[in-house]
Amino acid sequence: MNTSVSSSAFAPLKNDTFIRACLRQATDYTPIWLMRQAGRFLPEYRATRAKAGSFMGLATNVDYATEVSLQPVERFPIDAAILFSDILTVPDAMGLGLSFALGEGPRFAHPVRDEVAVAQLAVPDMDRLRYVFDAVTSIRKALNGKVPLIGFSGSPWTLACYMVEGAGSDDYRLVKTMLYARPDLLHRILQINADSVAQYLNAQIEAGAQAVMIFDSWGGVLADGAFQQFSLAYTQRVLAQLKREHAGARIPRIVFTKGGGLWLKEMGALDCDVLGLDWTVNLAKARAMVGDSKALQGNLDPNVLFASPAQIEVEAIKVLSSFGTPYAGEGTGPTHIFNLGHGVSQHTPTEHVAALVQAVHAHSRKMRS
Amino acid sequence: MNTSVSSSAFAPLKNDTFIRACLRQATDYTPIWLMRQAGRFLPEYRATRAKAGSFMGLATNVDYATEVSLQPVERFPIDAAILFSDILTVPDAMGLGLSFALGEGPRFAHPVRDEVAVAQLAVPDMDRLRYVFDAVTSIRKALNGKVPLIGFSGSPWTLACYMVEGAGSDDYRLVKTMLYARPDLLHRILQINADSVAQYLNAQIEAGAQAVMIFDSWGGVLADGAFQQFSLAYTQRVLAQLKREHAGARIPRIVFTKGGGLWLKEMGALDCDVLGLDWTVNLAKARAMVGDSKALQGNLDPNVLFASPAQIEVEAIKVLSSFGTPYAGEGTGPTHIFNLGHGVSQHTPTEHVAALVQAVHAHSRKMRS
Repeated sequence: MNTSVSSSAFAPLKNDTFIRACLRQATDYTPIWLMRQAGRFLPEYRATRAKAGSFMGLATNVDYATEVSLQPVERFPIDAAILFSDILTVPDAMGLGLSFALGEGPRFAHPVRDEVAVAQLAVPDMDRLRYVFDAVTSIRKALNGKVPLIGFSGSPWTLACYMVEGAGSDDYRLVKTMLYARPDLLHRILQINADSVAQYLNAQIEAGAQAVMIFDSWGGVLADGAFQQFSLAYTQRVLAQLKREHAGARIPRIVFTKGGGLWLKEMGALDCDVLGLDWTVNLAKARAMVGDSKALQGNLDPNVLFASPAQIEVEAIKVLSSFGTPYAGEGTGPTHIFNLGHGVSQHTPTEHVAALVQAVHAHSRKMRS
Repeated sequence: MNTSVSSSAFAPLKNDTFIRACLRQATDYTPIWLMRQAGRFLPEYRATRAKAGSFMGLATNVDYATEVSLQPVERFPIDAAILFSDILTVPDAMGLGLSFALGEGPRFAHPVRDEVAVAQLAVPDMDRLRYVFDAVTSIRKALNGKVPLIGFSGSPWTLACYMVEGAGSDDYRLVKTMLYARPDLLHRILQINADSVAQYLNAQIEAGAQAVMIFDSWGGVLADGAFQQFSLAYTQRVLAQLKREHAGARIPRIVFTKGGGLWLKEMGALDCDVLGLDWTVNLAKARAMVGDSKALQGNLDPNVLFASPAQIEVEAIKVLSSFGTPYAGEGTGPTHIFNLGHGVSQHTPTEHVAALVQAVHAHSRKMRS
């Protein structure tokens, strides 16, 4: 499928701070965006969500998806927008039947649990995901060059968790039973997922995404040894297939493994530009472990946003100081993209997010002077 | 309260493999026990639970608690027994009103969320926990020296999570809001918890516990920096108050922080004998990080027990090999206690546990020859 949009369709980028930091180039301040920034903590999001009727009604409608992706960028001076979508669109396109029951998480009507189901699995026709690529192009146009647009996907392993479990899980018993009892079946699922995710992200890039992020939300539940074999190897299989450039611009690739702090040394060898980190990781130690080949993104505990603005500033400064002064010369060096260590909570006061963005911008400018 | 029981009331210990390994002394094979071994995966447990009527009916009745603590020791040749109880007995004794709704987790009628509630909190009269100490004495007698008995408690931080949240949580929003917004209140709770846990564990030791374990089940949800200040420091406050010896025997102290792998270097400085590890940790790296002052306990993924007995053996050998050959000389050196990285799942086939125990005993004997 051709999702390619002529670069002349898009306005030039005015704020490239995020892209520069991803590529380990010097910036005037530390850029910030928040995972799940287009989400329930915003009253304007809840209003659009109510109009759309359902979560998938929101995610599959180009106008609504554009509206909610733009909302945080309009409200806060953040440095990147992210596509509004769900990480489970790819297995849905494989025919697994995604639904969201009210007040519950996602659920698949047809989980993949046996040899027969695995044999039927294939890389989906990307045309079934056209609504996502159309949303990417629409959001990019609507941004009008204000900040760059990040596309994303779940990692092969994280998608497999939902595909086998059929829903969220607290012990991952079914997918881990397959891992230990029938690793051949799980490897087959992961190969298909990796190739699907690569096609999916490349199509997002062609449609206008200026950076892409792989969310390995459940990599951290794996045992040492299993993580390398069943998560990391397939994230690398995705990365190896991704476009490095599009329309003359480099496309930074970000990998975020929640709970992956113990494997940072191995993640440092991934062929990507940025590693996302959760709040359990010490940024100074991470910088030492990963080495100078990657930018780091993260990692404030989202619950800090329930403290007072003054305390939020204190904690934001702790995170900035933990990374240390970012690179300020020519060429490339160590850089930091500020983010939370996980998605922003739906209960977060919007004015506290404003205080965080303000604190990160102001203090990180001071650090450089 | 005096819970002390004359040591002449108890039979001499026949199998001291677990105690020796805790104290970093050479053993003929690697001892094994399983977290939550007295639990729902055993049909005989479910039968006793049905007789008792409720979970707390089971935990507070000395005869039932003795019966279920003995069941895994009777069925499998494991090397330690553990008191059947709940980690939330201490806050219950503080008057928070613990209950277990059917099919749900624990719940407190009176969560501790504000200044007034914190001001009312105090170390409970240990007499309110006499049912626990009576169970310890009864189990120790019933074991008749077959294997040692482990007593336990939740860590100050883990107890605080439940006390503030009022129940389990998936984001720890309330307790972390207190942590960031009112750290003074949380420190007060943690001081009281630490002193309560120390009294509680000392009373278990006097009643007959031959080792004690602190379960820091939720330490791993804390941010770097917060973990050291709000979990580790209070675990150390407990350890500093614990009896080292009782009735002429040393009492090993075990600390297990789920998700604590990133902080192993700091945990290596704790004044305890053994560190428990979950399955995300590489035992060889852990051994290098912790140094030679601690025995290590763990760390098979409980989901391995859903694979075939042949595959269970393969994975058990991987864990044993990852630790490497334990110390075999005079004096003390690096030792390993085999366990799961978390509690055994209620869905585990009992014959698979038997296969695991057999594999660990047989292979670890071979490793030493």
